[in-house]
Amino acid sequence: MEPPSYRIEPLPGYTPIIGRLVGILRYARYTTLKAVDGLTVAELDHLHDQSSNSIGSLLAHIAVVERSYHCLTFEERRPSTQEHASWEPALTLGAEARRLLRNKPLDHYLHELQEARTLTLQGLADRDDAWLERSLSAAPAMNAHWAWFHQAEDEINHRGQIRWLRSRLGSVGAAAGGQRRAVPHNEEM
Amino acid sequence: MEPPSYRIEPLPGYTPIIGRLVGILRYARYTTLKAVDGLTVAELDHLHDQSSNSIGSLLAHIAVVERSYHCLTFEERRPSTQEHASWEPALTLGAEARRLLRNKPLDHYLHELQEARTLTLQGLADRDDAWLERSLSAAPAMNAHWAWFHQAEDEINHRGQIRWLRSRLGSVGAAAGGQRRAVPHNEEM
Repeated sequence: MEPPSYRIEPLPGYTPIIGRLVGILRYARYTTLKAVDGLTVAELDHLHDQSSNSIGSLLAHIAVVERSYHCLTFEERRPSTQEHASWEPALTLGAEARRLLRNKPLDHYLHELQEARTLTLQGLADRDDAWLERSLSAAPAMNAHWAWFHQAEDEINHRGQIRWLRSRLGSVGAAAGGQRRAVPHNEEM
Repeated sequence: MEPPSYRIEPLPGYTPIIGRLVGILRYARYTTLKAVDGLTVAELDHLHDQSSNSIGSLLAHIAVVERSYHCLTFEERRPSTQEHASWEPALTLGAEARRLLRNKPLDHYLHELQEARTLTLQGLADRDDAWLERSLSAAPAMNAHWAWFHQAEDEINHRGQIRWLRSRLGSVGAAAGGQRRAVPHNEEM
């Protein structure tokens, strides 16, 4: 895994504001991948308590939320009933996710995340800063800049939960989940 | 609490790139405040398990991390030993935070957050986009744009944990912690 950049700035291949957004998306994803590095199927499936989501289901969630924003921003439409159905139970999480999202290796989730991300980066590379901040026709209170920030924000929210859950998996899981801090604070979870 | 904006775009009173960053900081803070709205002292102090941080200590953490970034970005220096000491145990969290950060009402934490945020917004309003993306002399691998994005990112990470912890406080805490979703997914925590 390449070390992350600690700079937000324009990036080659994107218009300037989109490049800064891509920096945010990349950093968030780096920390997610770091947080799940090396997890086994049993660790990915573990349910901390009866209302917890597994770490695996949270990874699946991050990937399908990203898919839903492809519809909303690149295609300017709400997800169809069929799409919505195909993304359940990862989209809603909860009981159905606990029942169905199991027995997949980490590579399965990483593949789903990577497939969604490839489309995101291609969609963003094909568009410009004026597009980024126009109102979305499928959600007029929102612009695409907020939508893609929110993808990172929802991912970071769940990554916070993944770190918390991982630190309670036991010594093997906790040791591999250590997070290198590049910032002037150091904390336990 | 004013409803949040679902747009990231330039904001009056800030240079254009800084304005977009302020939109991110504001949205993250809105969700934090929403996640802790109405919590009692007992709920703020509750320890889910022996290695958990209380919700109160996570709020204290968010405020002191913001203070530490004032030093790093606005004053271009690392926090002093004295400052660091005064921010402990909120900065490091863990055992000392569990022992010392207790018996404060929500208003105490909200005041700390607001005081730090007022300085942040003033510091950002006084600076420009060229400043935002220059390397920080106290941390040359980092620019201020990343540093302030990271403030929001660390806050969102802990907000994810706060939501998780709050949903397990019992029926009173969980009911008041409901999160209105403005996005095309709906999930349990």
